[in-house]
Amino acid sequence: MKTQNIPKATIKRLAVYIQVLTGLKRDGVEVISSEKLARACSVNPSQIRKDLAYFGEFGVRGVGYYVHELISSIKQSLGVDRVWGCALVGVGNLGRALLRHKEFALRGFSIRAAFDCDPYKIGEVVSGLEVVCTRQFKARVEELGLEIGIITTPPERAQRAANYLVDGGIKGIVNFAQARIDVPKNVPVEYVDFTHHFYSVAFNISSME
Amino acid sequence: MKTQNIPKATIKRLAVYIQVLTGLKRDGVEVISSEKLARACSVNPSQIRKDLAYFGEFGVRGVGYYVHELISSIKQSLGVDRVWGCALVGVGNLGRALLRHKEFALRGFSIRAAFDCDPYKIGEVVSGLEVVCTRQFKARVEELGLEIGIITTPPERAQRAANYLVDGGIKGIVNFAQARIDVPKNVPVEYVDFTHHFYSVAFNISSME
Repeated sequence: MKTQNIPKATIKRLAVYIQVLTGLKRDGVEVISSEKLARACSVNPSQIRKDLAYFGEFGVRGVGYYVHELISSIKQSLGVDRVWGCALVGVGNLGRALLRHKEFALRGFSIRAAFDCDPYKIGEVVSGLEVVCTRQFKARVEELGLEIGIITTPPERAQRAANYLVDGGIKGIVNFAQARIDVPKNVPVEYVDFTHHFYSVAFNISSME
Repeated sequence: MKTQNIPKATIKRLAVYIQVLTGLKRDGVEVISSEKLARACSVNPSQIRKDLAYFGEFGVRGVGYYVHELISSIKQSLGVDRVWGCALVGVGNLGRALLRHKEFALRGFSIRAAFDCDPYKIGEVVSGLEVVCTRQFKARVEELGLEIGIITTPPERAQRAANYLVDGGIKGIVNFAQARIDVPKNVPVEYVDFTHHFYSVAFNISSME
């Protein structure tokens, strides 16, 4: 199924729905009403119904949503009902934390290779992966099925990392480095920035005082 | 200055503007046109002008924005022109990465205490901070000026961490744990979830194929 033009805010909420539904499934919940699901996700029920409407008909009137079915459907709609091969570039503190983070693999994002330019890091094994020189990226892409690149370098090295990824034929990039990167239009980039969450909390606290 | 009801999406973009402007300042740029700033931030110029209009008049017609002045004004408007005292709960891989992350302090968020319930971690020193039992949180709040709590526990311990923070009088929370938390309405919470960025990239790649 290919569903285009879904707003970014909807994708973000769908990720929350999957997170909450996965927790419910873990707790043995099989069916949930849209009201309860909405409360657990901190959105209103009409928003959930609207978001899910992008993908067709879900839920049974008077019953609610079947948890397992809903998770599968959302994942299928987003194209995350399969495993994506990921490569991480930049084995610093954040890179190490991500390599050890169990959540990615659980969500279908399998980090299969770790790259760094630092000769002291090359050869080190982190979370079962041997750190390899970034120049080797292109040579590993096909063998390991690397599709998504994760950049966790310092800001001044992010562009170079992106260049290696693009040159090797990466399909998309999640950039954790505090720098904008320039890549061809056919390579989608997502910027991860924690700071705006801190700004947002600080701003909300200030507004209340 | 207190400016209420600014959309979340605007705050997110303001964080990007600050990031890009700080990079420009570091490179010695003193003045920038709204077109160039827009390009560097990957938004359109009218969006930037609209976002900044929430806070009054910025920029000089025919000249552009004074970089230093603009950074100060945005920070003041967001309430981040001062240092916020932060406490981190959960010294796992991600917690360690955040404790060592230089960016937070540079942005005005000073992590002054690290808490964990694990007796093996208590007493350990990470990035200059001694890990303290989470039960001690309340006793440290005033002395250290702790205002924002950062939760980096496993999902099943997030609520307990939140309870300690709220009980100690925390003003706001940034939650990195993969779990929803229940706190009083006067404590703003921001959820950090990397996965939606991965979903978004996967979805964009799938849509193109």
